[in-house]
Amino acid sequence: MKAAIIGATGYGGAELVRILHQHDYIKQYSVYTSSQVGMKFSESYPQFNQITNEQLKEIDIDKISEEVDVVFMATPSGISNELTPKIFERGLTVIDLSGDLRFKDQDVYETWYKKKASPKDVLQKAVYGLTEINREIVKDAKLIANPGCYPTATILGLYPLLKNVKVDLDSIIIDAKSGASGAGRKASLATSYCEVNENFRIYKVNEHQHIPEIEQALKTVNPELGPIKFNTHLVPMTRGIMATIYCKPLNKMTEKSLRDLYQDFYQNDTFVRVREVGNYPSTKEVYGSNYCDIGITYDERTGWVTIVSVIDNLMKGAAGQAVQNLNVMLGIDEGTGLYGPPLFP
Amino acid sequence: MKAAIIGATGYGGAELVRILHQHDYIKQYSVYTSSQVGMKFSESYPQFNQITNEQLKEIDIDKISEEVDVVFMATPSGISNELTPKIFERGLTVIDLSGDLRFKDQDVYETWYKKKASPKDVLQKAVYGLTEINREIVKDAKLIANPGCYPTATILGLYPLLKNVKVDLDSIIIDAKSGASGAGRKASLATSYCEVNENFRIYKVNEHQHIPEIEQALKTVNPELGPIKFNTHLVPMTRGIMATIYCKPLNKMTEKSLRDLYQDFYQNDTFVRVREVGNYPSTKEVYGSNYCDIGITYDERTGWVTIVSVIDNLMKGAAGQAVQNLNVMLGIDEGTGLYGPPLFP
Amino acid sequence: MKAAIIGATGYGGAELVRILHQHDYIKQYSVYTSSQVGMKFSESYPQFNQITNEQLKEIDIDKISEEVDVVFMATPSGISNELTPKIFERGLTVIDLSGDLRFKDQDVYETWYKKKASPKDVLQKAVYGLTEINREIVKDAKLIANPGCYPTATILGLYPLLKNVKVDLDSIIIDAKSGASGAGRKASLATSYCEVNENFRIYKVNEHQHIPEIEQALKTVNPELGPIKFNTHLVPMTRGIMATIYCKPLNKMTEKSLRDLYQDFYQNDTFVRVREVGNYPSTKEVYGSNYCDIGITYDERTGWVTIVSVIDNLMKGAAGQAVQNLNVMLGIDEGTGLYGPPLFP
Amino acid sequence: MKAAIIGATGYGGAELVRILHQHDYIKQYSVYTSSQVGMKFSESYPQFNQITNEQLKEIDIDKISEEVDVVFMATPSGISNELTPKIFERGLTVIDLSGDLRFKDQDVYETWYKKKASPKDVLQKAVYGLTEINREIVKDAKLIANPGCYPTATILGLYPLLKNVKVDLDSIIIDAKSGASGAGRKASLATSYCEVNENFRIYKVNEHQHIPEIEQALKTVNPELGPIKFNTHLVPMTRGIMATIYCKPLNKMTEKSLRDLYQDFYQNDTFVRVREVGNYPSTKEVYGSNYCDIGITYDERTGWVTIVSVIDNLMKGAAGQAVQNLNVMLGIDEGTGLYGPPLFP
Repeated sequence: MKAAIIGATGYGGAELVRILHQHDYIKQYSVYTSSQVGMKFSESYPQFNQITNEQLKEIDIDKISEEVDVVFMATPSGISNELTPKIFERGLTVIDLSGDLRFKDQDVYETWYKKKASPKDVLQKAVYGLTEINREIVKDAKLIANPGCYPTATILGLYPLLKNVKVDLDSIIIDAKSGASGAGRKASLATSYCEVNENFRIYKVNEHQHIPEIEQALKTVNPELGPIKFNTHLVPMTRGIMATIYCKPLNKMTEKSLRDLYQDFYQNDTFVRVREVGNYPSTKEVYGSNYCDIGITYDERTGWVTIVSVIDNLMKGAAGQAVQNLNVMLGIDEGTGLYGPPLFP
Repeated sequence: MKAAIIGATGYGGAELVRILHQHDYIKQYSVYTSSQVGMKFSESYPQFNQITNEQLKEIDIDKISEEVDVVFMATPSGISNELTPKIFERGLTVIDLSGDLRFKDQDVYETWYKKKASPKDVLQKAVYGLTEINREIVKDAKLIANPGCYPTATILGLYPLLKNVKVDLDSIIIDAKSGASGAGRKASLATSYCEVNENFRIYKVNEHQHIPEIEQALKTVNPELGPIKFNTHLVPMTRGIMATIYCKPLNKMTEKSLRDLYQDFYQNDTFVRVREVGNYPSTKEVYGSNYCDIGITYDERTGWVTIVSVIDNLMKGAAGQAVQNLNVMLGIDEGTGLYGPPLFP
Repeated sequence: MKAAIIGATGYGGAELVRILHQHDYIKQYSVYTSSQVGMKFSESYPQFNQITNEQLKEIDIDKISEEVDVVFMATPSGISNELTPKIFERGLTVIDLSGDLRFKDQDVYETWYKKKASPKDVLQKAVYGLTEINREIVKDAKLIANPGCYPTATILGLYPLLKNVKVDLDSIIIDAKSGASGAGRKASLATSYCEVNENFRIYKVNEHQHIPEIEQALKTVNPELGPIKFNTHLVPMTRGIMATIYCKPLNKMTEKSLRDLYQDFYQNDTFVRVREVGNYPSTKEVYGSNYCDIGITYDERTGWVTIVSVIDNLMKGAAGQAVQNLNVMLGIDEGTGLYGPPLFP
Repeated sequence: MKAAIIGATGYGGAELVRILHQHDYIKQYSVYTSSQVGMKFSESYPQFNQITNEQLKEIDIDKISEEVDVVFMATPSGISNELTPKIFERGLTVIDLSGDLRFKDQDVYETWYKKKASPKDVLQKAVYGLTEINREIVKDAKLIANPGCYPTATILGLYPLLKNVKVDLDSIIIDAKSGASGAGRKASLATSYCEVNENFRIYKVNEHQHIPEIEQALKTVNPELGPIKFNTHLVPMTRGIMATIYCKPLNKMTEKSLRDLYQDFYQNDTFVRVREVGNYPSTKEVYGSNYCDIGITYDERTGWVTIVSVIDNLMKGAAGQAVQNLNVMLGIDEGTGLYGPPLFP
């Protein structure tokens, strides 16, 4: 089977190359870009020297359609809106890593992304690829809206609780932190080394475009959910997201019951690991891997729950989950190409 | 005037030396330790080569009492409990940077610190040295319990709101983040480079000993305050604390009114800087300085307030505030020795 | 085939687990330690949660000999001296990652390591496992002295030049830099986060124990080589080594001829990648992989050669090369378990 | 006395503001830029909030000449070539932090900087402001070419040896390392966080524009010096330079005689600190300060000398030395405004 990666010069694209290079079913892949056509991929990413000889090709949808079976869109938001409908109508399977296809409601997208939304019919066909939650509908999908990095960590962290426990819906707070690779590979003062190093910054306060994505997903569990409190911080590190989630259940709980609830919920999910009571994950413990690690506790003093959910933003938060979705669609082992343990230290 | 620094080989102690070295009133200081007696201070901290020739002396309270006027206790918790009463009764002014003298209630200390509390009469005489809040009583104090780093950022962030606005007391969440220097200068696997670098970790979930300190201080504003939700994270950086604080006011507000409230509250406080609406501080913007920078916003969608408060944990969170308190006690310009702008980048 | 990892709680040991877990021939491995017997390996390294259930066992050589076929010694220097002879005489294949078996001359070891050397007969049987150089004798070895991290980068960088070009032997300078993981997993002030972060340090000036190892290896190329100049620096990063090597050829050269010489020398070596003229590797470009990337140039102005050689110290500099040697000994594809591309960013 | 800082939005400019703000003689300074005219300086650098209210003004040489007495040029190379002659002829004292005025030979500048050189007469009047070496001629200067960061560390490290000891001139190797702030404040992929963090890179191999600056300075000691070997590496940290210098004296030496030689040479220089035998500086030990720390050793085995010289590139390597030169020109205490101890940790 052959795959195309459009937008391969970004960090998400390079991570797709890394995974697909070791994937048993998709060993052939080609790379497309709008900016460095003709250059060898390994000139842009020297870690791939002598590993791949692929050249960056221009994005010609007709050619791509003839040559490949599945297309990964690893482009910034606003590109997939235009390209994906054309690729999709040519019969290819598309997995879009951008935010363009994630919203059923065009207005929501246009309000938060300040861009023109994709056509309604395309949005209706797109399946939100949070694999553990939507595995059954992913199986039959041909068009995947791959979730955002923050939403992946957040929704996997909150879902079992909201599904099984009555909580004060207004109490939910998500305090999220990310490494700098989430901003993509580009020249920018805000993500230059001297501005990020030895610094901890809050950004997009109450304005992050992942807010409506999280709300849309959580409303499928409880339609009464109102607007959520969600803030994002930039951590001086390259990879990793932690969502620290607070909320108040309406009734008292025990730590053990909470932990059991999560363990049960994710018992068949290889890539979600629930920690023992009293044990919390750090981001490095999933570094370079497709795992989402979750720790959870109930504070007897306050009656509040704290959930800690970590992922590697480029893997489970982007390229890893994209391949996980592909595996599900292909009906092969969901972890194909994704079993590499985290890299630590 | 002469000062003694007990526990000078820790990071807080070294920061005191850095400040006092440039202090117009206290140019003479001596350094005491329990572990490296006889060594030159600059052997332990080579940045002070040819700047100070002080030798580390053993802690002999009688000698210290004869030689100095004011004592800074920069020791780990559990030491000041024993030493400070003896120093204090010899008539010296004491500023204790540890947690030992911060609690009026011995039980609270013993519960959270798992150590024997200081004598009640000593605790009663100790003034909690959060300068901006307690300046008037600091003026007449002879014994200062210098606040913890997290409490300083948190209380300065919450105080004006709690004082002036009715909030849902159960809604308050403090999600705090700190660099690694807060853990002190010591050999420890948990703070070794490879475990901290490129990693973001939550620690002491619902168990941090700064929780009761924050509660005690905030209850002076509103005695009805219950237990607070407070969690701490380790950021891969050396200096800096950010407290991201969430809470829900009972009535609607505007961003401008909130910002005005804070600006008014701190208008005469050199070291607290309130940001303009829409502007939030990052930790590097107070690096190496005594400033506490605060950003604040009201989210129209959710009706919640977010407060962002940053300090340098070794300065406003420890040594800087200790000297600020000393200045107030001496009746001199509060910023003496502390006006150095932050170091950026 | 079954493998034992002795000293599995160190970073080198954990890296061996990561590699062997994905190794097609050795899927069964057990882990041994002197310090945390009985603990689950994944308690010590939570990244392996639900990946391996191995428990840390005590080092009982008789039991080990019955259960496994090959033993990796990932212990600090001084341990293998005692254990390896006993394991080896029980007929097992041993790959020792410590420095204990690398020297043919016992005096050299004892001078630089300040420890008692291994028995002469064991040292004679040990093959120095710099795979690309010694592949032919590794094939028949039963006992491998796996090279040190700095020597691997240095010798691979210098070997082709010394083999093929006449150089002023006294001109050779090796200025080496390493991330902190080379110091191992332990509590130590010198490698604590605040001492390493935002800091660049030189250490063991003219005294590093890898000096005699490099000299021994290079003297096999040219016995006239005298003592080398070799210094090591600690870089504020976790993984990676760069050796910047300077030396003066006796005759003029061209950049192209130099590059061709290296390219020819390593043309059949998957894990050594020689850069194009004008292109130099950075450490991140081999991060988490078994590659050694080399850039080389000739300065027309000065007539000197500069060689830049980078590796991941835990992979090609330790665990990766150990497995590469095992593969060669087993007669299987040399890259088995080692083809994972570098992780970037 | 009034100062102007032209190019104040760069890191060097911001560091000048930090120093001048605490300078006893120059408390009034104004800031000029070509790009953000009208903006408050503290909007560009929030660490200066409520510390300075200066606005960024456009560069109008006539106005500047009327208002100030001394001008700091903190502009990229190529700007001062044009502006400085005009400012200088209006009678102002100029301290140029760029490379534009450092070369007596126009051809050398044009070869290495690929830009048109300054007029010959201006270059002749410019004094190379390496304070410790040229203090006597700085005293009478009106125009200072402030040295580059690498040359400052390198020349201070080599000068005493070349002046007093016969060395093999072809043996000199300078292996230099720098933090990322040397690249200035700008959006650039090469200095973006994810490309620099956890990475160690060599750059401008044999091509750095500081090579001829070092050669010019060292030739004043020994005109027979030929082209030097000098390479630069990017360290994942913000501030700091280390030059590791190797060279071979023609005769045997002792460590003590070497150390004494350096100690004597710099005995009256506050800002150069020579370490004891066996002790070497790290970059953090001069962080945020104007010190240059030097360690030096002689290797009995090889007969080579190693010199380790560290500075903070923004201080002694730029803004700090610029103010040091100003102080010398003003005939005031050379350390005015510069006595702040290094910030550690």
